[in-house]
Amino acid sequence: MSAAPSPDPSLTGERLRPHRIGIDTGGEHVVYLPHGSPACQGEGFGPQSRLQLSLGGHRLMANLAIVQGNGLAPDQIGLSESVWASLRPTADDHVTLAHPPSVESLSNVRAKLYGGTLAEAQLRAIVADIAAQRYSNIEMAAFIAACSGDHLALDEVVALTGAMVDTGTRLRWPSPMVVDKHCVGGLPGNRTTPIVVAIATALGLVMPKTSSRAITSPAGTADTMAVLTPVDLDVGRMRRTVERTGGCLVWGGAINLAPVDDTLIRIERALDIDSPGQLVASILSKKVAAGSTHVVIDMPVGPTAKVREARHARMLERMLHAVAGRFGLGLTVLRTDGLQPVGRGVGPALEAHDVLAVLQNLPAQPRDLRERALALAAVVLDTAGRAESGSSLAMARECLDSGRAWRQFQAICEAQGGLRSPGVAPHRYPVVATREGRVEAIDNRRLAQAAKLAGAPASPLAGLAIDVRVGDMVACGQPLFTLHAQSPGELAYALEYVARHPSIVSLGATSEEIGT
Amino acid sequence: MSAAPSPDPSLTGERLRPHRIGIDTGGEHVVYLPHGSPACQGEGFGPQSRLQLSLGGHRLMANLAIVQGNGLAPDQIGLSESVWASLRPTADDHVTLAHPPSVESLSNVRAKLYGGTLAEAQLRAIVADIAAQRYSNIEMAAFIAACSGDHLALDEVVALTGAMVDTGTRLRWPSPMVVDKHCVGGLPGNRTTPIVVAIATALGLVMPKTSSRAITSPAGTADTMAVLTPVDLDVGRMRRTVERTGGCLVWGGAINLAPVDDTLIRIERALDIDSPGQLVASILSKKVAAGSTHVVIDMPVGPTAKVREARHARMLERMLHAVAGRFGLGLTVLRTDGLQPVGRGVGPALEAHDVLAVLQNLPAQPRDLRERALALAAVVLDTAGRAESGSSLAMARECLDSGRAWRQFQAICEAQGGLRSPGVAPHRYPVVATREGRVEAIDNRRLAQAAKLAGAPASPLAGLAIDVRVGDMVACGQPLFTLHAQSPGELAYALEYVARHPSIVSLGATSEEIGT
Repeated sequence: MSAAPSPDPSLTGERLRPHRIGIDTGGEHVVYLPHGSPACQGEGFGPQSRLQLSLGGHRLMANLAIVQGNGLAPDQIGLSESVWASLRPTADDHVTLAHPPSVESLSNVRAKLYGGTLAEAQLRAIVADIAAQRYSNIEMAAFIAACSGDHLALDEVVALTGAMVDTGTRLRWPSPMVVDKHCVGGLPGNRTTPIVVAIATALGLVMPKTSSRAITSPAGTADTMAVLTPVDLDVGRMRRTVERTGGCLVWGGAINLAPVDDTLIRIERALDIDSPGQLVASILSKKVAAGSTHVVIDMPVGPTAKVREARHARMLERMLHAVAGRFGLGLTVLRTDGLQPVGRGVGPALEAHDVLAVLQNLPAQPRDLRERALALAAVVLDTAGRAESGSSLAMARECLDSGRAWRQFQAICEAQGGLRSPGVAPHRYPVVATREGRVEAIDNRRLAQAAKLAGAPASPLAGLAIDVRVGDMVACGQPLFTLHAQSPGELAYALEYVARHPSIVSLGATSEEIGT
Repeated sequence: MSAAPSPDPSLTGERLRPHRIGIDTGGEHVVYLPHGSPACQGEGFGPQSRLQLSLGGHRLMANLAIVQGNGLAPDQIGLSESVWASLRPTADDHVTLAHPPSVESLSNVRAKLYGGTLAEAQLRAIVADIAAQRYSNIEMAAFIAACSGDHLALDEVVALTGAMVDTGTRLRWPSPMVVDKHCVGGLPGNRTTPIVVAIATALGLVMPKTSSRAITSPAGTADTMAVLTPVDLDVGRMRRTVERTGGCLVWGGAINLAPVDDTLIRIERALDIDSPGQLVASILSKKVAAGSTHVVIDMPVGPTAKVREARHARMLERMLHAVAGRFGLGLTVLRTDGLQPVGRGVGPALEAHDVLAVLQNLPAQPRDLRERALALAAVVLDTAGRAESGSSLAMARECLDSGRAWRQFQAICEAQGGLRSPGVAPHRYPVVATREGRVEAIDNRRLAQAAKLAGAPASPLAGLAIDVRVGDMVACGQPLFTLHAQSPGELAYALEYVARHPSIVSLGATSEEIGT
């Protein structure tokens, strides 16, 4: 009930010329204003202020940083790479700044923090605001904290899953049955997916497999497959591949399945917060979005795997079954041995070599990878009702032994754009035992870290090849694993880490030492 | 139990030349590496990686951003302003990068999130790691989320308070009784502290007052006092002022009292998470660190104040008393009317004019500010046992009326470096009523926002002067409040906000309208 004149827009200094400042902040939207900018003085913005940018009809929220010196003119605003990619300004465009509108759904986050239970609409509002990039990193951290531990009730996990599905593409397939598999993770080299897809689709199932690239591991299935064939297919090309072969092995990131999940994972990993509710929503939102009807979950359990105890495995299984049921998704969990890495290779190309050796039935193929893939394929066949009771494992084995799975794998790669041979890294270094002994344990986490320091997955040929298994006797000087790198610098980094962590492979006493 | 050679350090590319990149990120440590940097490739660092910098014996953690283009040489690392200020590298220095050591106390944050109760040692470990800047913003957000609502038990609030005290300076005074006051906040113009300190110390009490600058308000006591006298005194100068006059009115930031509290407040404000436990730890850690023995808390309660309901006020009071008791701190809470702003001015200089008018007993002094200051001074005198029962208000009034408080205030300012006159802003604009009516309500939050957009507190003369009180009848065209700005641009910003929010001052129906 008060009167004020309209301000003169020329005085507000709000229209700013966008400048690509060339800083990649990893997906966090940051904008840069020069020190003493009229926009700062006028609006009271300062470092770390949250503000809203508008360009045409496009709006987004960003954090502010202030640039000292002559980097920016007073009428310029610097945009980080993610802001630039979102706004895509042309030469004549101007950006307008404003105080951000209040994000109403944050009150739901606060309610959850204070111990409340959220209704579906409240979780949907949160997920919609995250999808629209209205949450800052610390606001997402507060949401993840609110959902951590066992704070999410089953109905909340269901609502979160459904909300995440609805933020992205949802694939639909003509087949009434669409099978899928997923590994909970934490076991280096456990690259069964390409083999399972080859067997299942060779036997007539529809399995349009979308996979992720590595987030914290040395390779994801998409990284390994990218060594062998194009994986960044769009939905049309993916559909044509599935029509022709019944399956595909593509990168899910190109298809935009439940993209909010990727945003949340970025913060969850940084916080290392364990949340079964969010893990289940993450896994199942991708499967529902991919149009799957039946999913087999590989859950390795072991002291250095992601799931460390049977108690944790049982709790996850119960929640996976309950949530899958609410989406009409058939789900089977196969608990597997998570004691040690699978196969020989750890890293995109090294794992591709293992996959090819199993598919081609080479004498030197890693038997453990072969047997794990067969067990999973058998469960997929059982799930789909494709085998007489008890005969599914034999069916899968026959498919692999006969070369039928290998021919099918080649057909899928051809349909995706052609099969390539994986190369071998130029720099290799064997890490050897410094004494005789029996291999007592292999630390999956540190082994994965060594493979990453060697360059995996960004350098696709990098990683390591494991030369021993738990229980093996080794002589002094015998190789334990061999580091592979594409540059001497990366090899040096990995070696330095290995030297600092001599217990990546633990050797016990020899039988003679025990005897005396 | 494996052998690897020592790496050639020249290959690791770790020693980098620091470059002050001139970006102020508001206290979040950020470092910048060029795209394709050997350090990124070797260590697997990417955008938003968390890494540890070392220079000499100094280590700190930072987030990584990647600079595209030619901004940095391959052997350079760009440092944000806060990193530069922490490391203070010389021309020949090199910075070494490493993966950050795991921050063990984060497991305590996770335990708290999962519903546990933390022991004193666990909270101390968290606070020590935050003090050492080992927590990222999202990790601090997770800690704040874990402590939100009523999640902190009394013992945890006590432990958090003690841990925050121990991260900074702890003042000790020769006097056995050291009085203090604090306002919970949320009421624009409620600048009683300078008046209370003048009265209390004129009457012989020791009151070495440290105050904060504004965080989200148009002015803190330190901002207002900075208009009148130097406030950024070091501990020695502060002690000399107190020795000479019994009191002081200085900025606490220069003295490093419970600095972790300032770090946490930055994230709490951004999250707008309500946590009585953290509010109590924040208030009392500063008081214990300042060496106070008796504290009077001004707690305004009103619909647009910080404490909105009597229920919330009672809960805060109980916790304040319980925690203060554990530190041997005498504490009295005075609940005050939080309906509307206090005095006429909102903004550093405008509030200083009000304070001077009360101290000088000018005819145009704001009576509400005077009466609130007298009520608080009386409670301070009662707390200190300086007055006969029931006579403390009369003592305080006599001290003010006689000019004794004004002479004492001048003495304090002289001891701090001299008393100055506050100026008046060059750009002023009255916001007028657009019709006749009775003032029904004043929105404290929006009024404060208008004062900030006019430039307060960074422009010390900016803010606004209120011309009406709740219950006043106003005529059409009569001024409701007057905006003060140091530049036309800032005035335009504030006017634009006021035009968008006509209900900052709500007018009800006139008596004639009601009558007909």
